[in-house]
Amino acid sequence: MKKSNNKIWGGRFSSSTDQLMEEFNSSIQFDKILYIEDIEGSIAHSEMLSKQKIISKNELELIVSGLKQIELEISNSEFNFSLELEDIHMNIENRLIEIIGEAGKKLHTARSRNDQVATDIKLWLRKRIDQIELNLKSLQRTLIEKSEIYYDLLMPGYTHLQVGQPVTFGHHLLAYVEMLGRDRDRLGDCRKRLNELPLGSAALAGTSYPIDRHFVAQKLNFSKPTENSMDAVSDRDFAIEFMSVSSLIAIHLSRLAEELVIWSSDSFNFVKLSESYTTGSSIMPQKRNPDAAELIRAKPGRIFGNLLNLMTVLKGLPMTYGKDMQEDKQPIFDTAKTIDSCILNMEGMVKSLEPIPDKMMEALQKGFPTATDLADYLVTELKIPFRDAHHLTGQVVMLAEKKESNLENLTIEEIKTIIPNAEITILDILKIESSVSKRTSYGGTAPVNVLQAVKKAKERFLKD
Amino acid sequence: MKKSNNKIWGGRFSSSTDQLMEEFNSSIQFDKILYIEDIEGSIAHSEMLSKQKIISKNELELIVSGLKQIELEISNSEFNFSLELEDIHMNIENRLIEIIGEAGKKLHTARSRNDQVATDIKLWLRKRIDQIELNLKSLQRTLIEKSEIYYDLLMPGYTHLQVGQPVTFGHHLLAYVEMLGRDRDRLGDCRKRLNELPLGSAALAGTSYPIDRHFVAQKLNFSKPTENSMDAVSDRDFAIEFMSVSSLIAIHLSRLAEELVIWSSDSFNFVKLSESYTTGSSIMPQKRNPDAAELIRAKPGRIFGNLLNLMTVLKGLPMTYGKDMQEDKQPIFDTAKTIDSCILNMEGMVKSLEPIPDKMMEALQKGFPTATDLADYLVTELKIPFRDAHHLTGQVVMLAEKKESNLENLTIEEIKTIIPNAEITILDILKIESSVSKRTSYGGTAPVNVLQAVKKAKERFLKD
Amino acid sequence: MKKSNNKIWGGRFSSSTDQLMEEFNSSIQFDKILYIEDIEGSIAHSEMLSKQKIISKNELELIVSGLKQIELEISNSEFNFSLELEDIHMNIENRLIEIIGEAGKKLHTARSRNDQVATDIKLWLRKRIDQIELNLKSLQRTLIEKSEIYYDLLMPGYTHLQVGQPVTFGHHLLAYVEMLGRDRDRLGDCRKRLNELPLGSAALAGTSYPIDRHFVAQKLNFSKPTENSMDAVSDRDFAIEFMSVSSLIAIHLSRLAEELVIWSSDSFNFVKLSESYTTGSSIMPQKRNPDAAELIRAKPGRIFGNLLNLMTVLKGLPMTYGKDMQEDKQPIFDTAKTIDSCILNMEGMVKSLEPIPDKMMEALQKGFPTATDLADYLVTELKIPFRDAHHLTGQVVMLAEKKESNLENLTIEEIKTIIPNAEITILDILKIESSVSKRTSYGGTAPVNVLQAVKKAKERFLKD
Amino acid sequence: MKKSNNKIWGGRFSSSTDQLMEEFNSSIQFDKILYIEDIEGSIAHSEMLSKQKIISKNELELIVSGLKQIELEISNSEFNFSLELEDIHMNIENRLIEIIGEAGKKLHTARSRNDQVATDIKLWLRKRIDQIELNLKSLQRTLIEKSEIYYDLLMPGYTHLQVGQPVTFGHHLLAYVEMLGRDRDRLGDCRKRLNELPLGSAALAGTSYPIDRHFVAQKLNFSKPTENSMDAVSDRDFAIEFMSVSSLIAIHLSRLAEELVIWSSDSFNFVKLSESYTTGSSIMPQKRNPDAAELIRAKPGRIFGNLLNLMTVLKGLPMTYGKDMQEDKQPIFDTAKTIDSCILNMEGMVKSLEPIPDKMMEALQKGFPTATDLADYLVTELKIPFRDAHHLTGQVVMLAEKKESNLENLTIEEIKTIIPNAEITILDILKIESSVSKRTSYGGTAPVNVLQAVKKAKERFLKD
Repeated sequence: MKKSNNKIWGGRFSSSTDQLMEEFNSSIQFDKILYIEDIEGSIAHSEMLSKQKIISKNELELIVSGLKQIELEISNSEFNFSLELEDIHMNIENRLIEIIGEAGKKLHTARSRNDQVATDIKLWLRKRIDQIELNLKSLQRTLIEKSEIYYDLLMPGYTHLQVGQPVTFGHHLLAYVEMLGRDRDRLGDCRKRLNELPLGSAALAGTSYPIDRHFVAQKLNFSKPTENSMDAVSDRDFAIEFMSVSSLIAIHLSRLAEELVIWSSDSFNFVKLSESYTTGSSIMPQKRNPDAAELIRAKPGRIFGNLLNLMTVLKGLPMTYGKDMQEDKQPIFDTAKTIDSCILNMEGMVKSLEPIPDKMMEALQKGFPTATDLADYLVTELKIPFRDAHHLTGQVVMLAEKKESNLENLTIEEIKTIIPNAEITILDILKIESSVSKRTSYGGTAPVNVLQAVKKAKERFLKD
Repeated sequence: MKKSNNKIWGGRFSSSTDQLMEEFNSSIQFDKILYIEDIEGSIAHSEMLSKQKIISKNELELIVSGLKQIELEISNSEFNFSLELEDIHMNIENRLIEIIGEAGKKLHTARSRNDQVATDIKLWLRKRIDQIELNLKSLQRTLIEKSEIYYDLLMPGYTHLQVGQPVTFGHHLLAYVEMLGRDRDRLGDCRKRLNELPLGSAALAGTSYPIDRHFVAQKLNFSKPTENSMDAVSDRDFAIEFMSVSSLIAIHLSRLAEELVIWSSDSFNFVKLSESYTTGSSIMPQKRNPDAAELIRAKPGRIFGNLLNLMTVLKGLPMTYGKDMQEDKQPIFDTAKTIDSCILNMEGMVKSLEPIPDKMMEALQKGFPTATDLADYLVTELKIPFRDAHHLTGQVVMLAEKKESNLENLTIEEIKTIIPNAEITILDILKIESSVSKRTSYGGTAPVNVLQAVKKAKERFLKD
Repeated sequence: MKKSNNKIWGGRFSSSTDQLMEEFNSSIQFDKILYIEDIEGSIAHSEMLSKQKIISKNELELIVSGLKQIELEISNSEFNFSLELEDIHMNIENRLIEIIGEAGKKLHTARSRNDQVATDIKLWLRKRIDQIELNLKSLQRTLIEKSEIYYDLLMPGYTHLQVGQPVTFGHHLLAYVEMLGRDRDRLGDCRKRLNELPLGSAALAGTSYPIDRHFVAQKLNFSKPTENSMDAVSDRDFAIEFMSVSSLIAIHLSRLAEELVIWSSDSFNFVKLSESYTTGSSIMPQKRNPDAAELIRAKPGRIFGNLLNLMTVLKGLPMTYGKDMQEDKQPIFDTAKTIDSCILNMEGMVKSLEPIPDKMMEALQKGFPTATDLADYLVTELKIPFRDAHHLTGQVVMLAEKKESNLENLTIEEIKTIIPNAEITILDILKIESSVSKRTSYGGTAPVNVLQAVKKAKERFLKD
Repeated sequence: MKKSNNKIWGGRFSSSTDQLMEEFNSSIQFDKILYIEDIEGSIAHSEMLSKQKIISKNELELIVSGLKQIELEISNSEFNFSLELEDIHMNIENRLIEIIGEAGKKLHTARSRNDQVATDIKLWLRKRIDQIELNLKSLQRTLIEKSEIYYDLLMPGYTHLQVGQPVTFGHHLLAYVEMLGRDRDRLGDCRKRLNELPLGSAALAGTSYPIDRHFVAQKLNFSKPTENSMDAVSDRDFAIEFMSVSSLIAIHLSRLAEELVIWSSDSFNFVKLSESYTTGSSIMPQKRNPDAAELIRAKPGRIFGNLLNLMTVLKGLPMTYGKDMQEDKQPIFDTAKTIDSCILNMEGMVKSLEPIPDKMMEALQKGFPTATDLADYLVTELKIPFRDAHHLTGQVVMLAEKKESNLENLTIEEIKTIIPNAEITILDILKIESSVSKRTSYGGTAPVNVLQAVKKAKERFLKD
């Protein structure tokens, strides 16, 4: 067994790390993903050290060229990652010393792994947020384009999975555009708060070296340095906030995914999903399963789990850095990857799906969807108070049900048995087409509204 | 058993609701808390109906006076809530009809419970957010005031609950001011997104009545009406976002609470908590238990539970409204109440706690907290690269440990056995006081920095 | 402000509890539900104290009669609960001293609230577990009875919500009987582990009084006293295990609830839910919404939240009792209540639902559900390896789809274009009825199997 | 783009799977871990097929030898896993056909991936449960051995992290032995319920082949075949139950871990952790951080997250198999691995830790831990009712606190100012040593009890 004092931090240690512990303790297996950001941060840090005369120009050049060589080695899979060196930071620093010698030992001046890792994760996450935001925008575009095409395609609007009132397919899809719009807004707020530089907080108390944190912040495109060194190294708000926002994205996508599963069931049959997003069965040769939709429906479990994981870890953790916080990485990495896959697959599915108008109309015939229109008519035309109108309409529905008819096919005589002063114009009210076209209130489903909403959505969400 | 068609929605029903089901289904037990907001929303709605000539001026007056009477009845506990009437909306509407007759039946024109309940919750939650935000500000003020008093009180700064470097008590408390500052920021963003009016979306599709949603939005201080009627009635993002933000607040408070528990333990003894926030034991007469701190430490469990509850409910729920969504209320109500109690009790505890400087200093003596200063000295003065300096310092610590000494009490001769060219000035470096005063980097713990940070914090957080 | 030293534990306290803190700290608002168990435990405890001569016979009698009076006062709502007295234990003890004087002060001898509250909760929870177990059995009975009636009613068996193979309605319902059987088994295991008596562990270390814990265990029907006093007062495993088991029950019920929602949708229309378990809409007069099913579908969110709440609280909590543990009660109480309501409402719904055989058969026609039978036929009769048979069958399905036919209606000529050596008997294979009756493998869906399974289920689950 | 009808299930498909979707949909990246169990299950399945004359002896031999070759290829990393083939089942079946030709196409006769994957996971998890159970036993052994050595080492027993009463270190450690004992019990119950064979349930409805499921069950050491084919393929109870049990294990370990972190802090200093389980700092050369303990403290977050993940996925999922259920694997795999690491590292830490008796005694001096003994003495000797005795003792504590003395050092005169009839023997009562030795109630901390408990624990937990 090797002595721990071979380790970079091992000056005071006289015996070795247990093998089991080494594996348990190391993060290099998963944090190597941060190598680009770690090098990016180290370069900005050394430029500052040089500007402040803490290291020489020559040392800076050596460090930068060494780090760039390492970046190349890693991206070419020529780098030997060592478990014993624990994490990406120590792996890179150690290799740097191998390559450039003494100057490499100066890189860690005026910083600690505590502020370094917080900086690395922020840099990494900032890129992912930007990517996710772009992908959300692209999914919005796809939804908006479908909405425009199907702005007047009639389908049932559901509450409780019971037919409620007719809506248009375009109107339905635009609801998701709204949700994703809020998600993008939340991502932006999260990015804004994340965007402060921890580096220079050192272990926890700041440092006595004459560093320039504003310079580093600018180099790395942070809006400013963090204000309190203890907060800076113990803060993982940004990770939790990112996973909270991701949870909502995942929920929104899962709702649409559930609808796709239901709509593509044999009984609904409202949409045909592309074969590119469905798969077969190993035993039942006829199956075309909506696997992509089901996976997207399931993924919130994973994101919630990741969120809960890190929240649990941070709950009641005394300041400042504790090793517990190493558990932040895998949930963040997995969440970013999962959300991205969900968005991209959803976009593919939506783009390639085909609505089946006949089936949508067939379903509309079943659910008495114009009952509300009838009640509203009684209010407007016959001056019956809404509550009474609602009650009378309920009785008309009972009648239709008993006759196994839909509302449109009731005769005026039949209706008069319940509403004696009903007039013949009442039959128009019961038509599905007229129901939709009248719902012109702001945000309503009338096709003319939907077209306007499409136009507005393009302005609000798709600019540049 | 009564027929369901006595119910307001019972026109088409021929038999009755099961007793068990009635209890299971009703929300009046907990949603009566919304009565003020329900009435507020109904008044704005009827004013709009009247302005748009959908009801008459006279009817409006009747409705408003009836609703005001009901508000009084409820606040005076003279209102008979009925389980059979399911929820606060139906309880109020039913009573209104009792009081004012036919005009009451017109209140529900051009709206549905779906858009009504979304509006009520938003109104209620907006008030709670404003209150929580104020309380957070007040807690920040208390922390800032303590920081100002103790800007130079020395205590150990911990990582891994091991003494790391000396910091000041003021600096430590200011870290929490930063956290709470981000929390307030998040609350503000949440409020901004919440602040769109669902009312007028009706059941899900909008309405054919000539309503004016912008008028109602203005009356109720919403920034604008929601854009899509289906989204409006199925959206609970605001509730999830509120509970996500609350989770972070709860985490921050629980971290400070954990520190208070540890600091007030007999072995640390860094602070004396007021008897007003501690309690005794039923069996052990000597106990003074930090109950308030422990409860605050525990409460994140509750908030996480509430958050996960609603996230689970909404995951994979097809549009638009499903009864599942009734499960939104208790988590929201409980979260708002819990967070408020935690903030207020934390403020009381912080305000009344007394630090015990001697004990803090005693703890500082134990942990070799100036080892980093020694390493930095070797870098700056003896031009030893940081990695080597770190290693040599580790050996000095081992020496001190072997001699059961702290670093300050080592002799120059002892140090020279490890660092041959050490000079006598090295002994100053090992003093705790000098360690802190040198950490003047931006965000660092030097007392002069802390005083500046206090000043800046007042500007950033306490302005109104 | 009153001094805390008026409090039962206040001997060493010189100032008072803050008002806010008092409210935050008290549990009497919710733990009064434990009064019967608290009194039950106190009586057993005093009987033991008397048997062991720690108190006199006379004191025992006074205590018992005092406690019984208190029980009556509480059940008659004549008891004044005091927030200042914190919890049910202190409220009762204090009142006991009021009623019987000095002897009352001896009740707390040789115990602490720590072992007392653990005992109370176990007593309470044991009763609830027994009740839930009974209710589950009753729900199983209802499901088994329905299965017996509909042992050969054909319906689609789904994977991915796509028609897979025909099954019988009885077979489908029996799957839930299996799930609930495992749930009952888990409840039993939980009860077994819970059933050890904490009382007599005192604060944490045991006591020096000559108590007899086995006597108390026997009196209260515990299998034995707990083995380690520190474990006894800090253990809440039983609560977490109960909520874990409840989570699975809730999941099982939610799956059936989701099926009921889908089956009662207008497009599936497989079942008619009783009006007793559906409700109407405030705006759409035609609606009959499956509210009970939706609520049951939603409730896992609540149970998961409760479970995660307590798990989060106990994670990383040092021994022994911490005030954090007071947060155990509300999740336990709410979980027991919720699970009970879900089971009872599910039973009501299942009992009163009516399947609609025509619609089930109609759906079966759509999904090519006998494709697997065709593939199996090719294997058995034409000796084609399964993988090839699967592939050929897939092509037959494509053919049928192209012709907008179902499999049954293909002609032998059409089939021969893909399977040249197909014989006329192949047409029988494609009939739905024959598909089901052939699935006689153990656990399979053939009606004859289902009848046997019903019989066996009665033996396994419904005995006394 | 390749056609999907190259896929094993692709007979009816005319276009291809999207690249993005392929990656999203495949599980081979993580389910290859199941290869041994998949092959084990396939061999048992084919043996049955041969016994039942569904395949020939010769085909059986080919299949078995082919599968064994594949097992070798995989374990030697010579197997080409293909994303396009989705999962371990299809990868192996496809390779089998490559190796042995036609006979390979018969392997999938009378089964489906649905029953196959359930069988694989159960086989895999059963092994892990057995391993975890063994490791828990080993950790119990280590704790029991430490308890035996330190059966009378005095330390503070805490409630609320405040010194409560003296206990022995052995007694404290035995509390964890109890917790882990319950955990092993729960694992056993979970294993018992898991141990039923799904294979032979086929897709969902059973099969028409004359299979013998009892034979396969016996071959694979399952107690019996599952009773209902639909339940069998949609059931993941065992996975959730395993993760629930693991959550409790993780909680127990995290509580001990938190104690180790606190005990090894500079201010407590109760134990010295081995350098093998601590690490250094990259910047602070003096640090020895309890990283292993912190990681174990953090891991419940991960396990809770995994549990919540799968519970969320299964909530409200209609029968039978849905692709959502593919999300079961990673949480299960990760949980098993994490729990194992936690147990092993905890055992290493406990085995190598050294208590520091002086520091434990020093802490005991601070907290007036014999106050309860004094109160009990007043009850027993001076016949003062417990409540009054508690109150008087509280005042003695206040006196000691004011004099900055501990209880042992008060004079009899001082005590008499509060308890006039106190006798000189009262001073013995206040000694820590006598406090512990008197706590001989069942489960109490008296050293004589602890020794007995050690002996009993060996019988209960370490027998094989």
